[in-house]
Amino acid sequence: MHGHHDLEELDEAASWERLASVPIARVGVVLDGRIDVLPVNHLVHEGRVCWRTTSGTKLAVAARELPVAVEADQIDPQTRAGWSVLLHGVARIVTEAARLEALELVGFEAWTSPDQRTMWIEVEPTSISGREVS
Amino acid sequence: MHGHHDLEELDEAASWERLASVPIARVGVVLDGRIDVLPVNHLVHEGRVCWRTTSGTKLAVAARELPVAVEADQIDPQTRAGWSVLLHGVARIVTEAARLEALELVGFEAWTSPDQRTMWIEVEPTSISGREVS
Repeated sequence: MHGHHDLEELDEAASWERLASVPIARVGVVLDGRIDVLPVNHLVHEGRVCWRTTSGTKLAVAARELPVAVEADQIDPQTRAGWSVLLHGVARIVTEAARLEALELVGFEAWTSPDQRTMWIEVEPTSISGREVS
Repeated sequence: MHGHHDLEELDEAASWERLASVPIARVGVVLDGRIDVLPVNHLVHEGRVCWRTTSGTKLAVAARELPVAVEADQIDPQTRAGWSVLLHGVARIVTEAARLEALELVGFEAWTSPDQRTMWIEVEPTSISGREVS
């Protein structure tokens, strides 16, 4: 029905590039035994995935420095071609003043005004992988 | 910087409608203590979320009938408006012949040819929720 598709593993650099190229990623977390997957308006900064949030779940996960998975994809429903990236790491609340200042500068476009979502979360990656179907 | 946004909780019917309106969702799973978030080319059929797969992780989760989270969203990066839906449930491999036949009929457009991805997974939902920013 559809033509032949080639599946290619993306290397680390290509995976980071894809992850940084889209505004929305999804964060998988486990809190009190329950899996949640939540969209985030993320950015990639100094080798970490960062986002602002007021969400109870995402804050609680970061406050406890729990493991998370971050997924991004871009898949054309017509051609079925596209890519997906999956990063694993540990979430934490950013508290360093210099780092917060840098994130505010880079992330000034993020979602809502800073006063509404004042906490920055960052994920320190332990692995990243990606695949592309063309 | 951006205008005021209204956040609205979607009821169950509206959440299902949104989930069924997009071709790609993301499945959050925990296998051997590791969280993964994986894109799936899903469909909604008889109150369940279904997809075909050959993925080791997704098959293993379904074979063990483990809890999963299914997320879908559509968010405009320019206006920041959009919606997201989160469903919780238990994944299983579909084995009933009549159900497999129905899924093949509904899902003939899915991803690759049937011979490449012969297993159907379905998620029996325990909860669904959604939110919309307009």
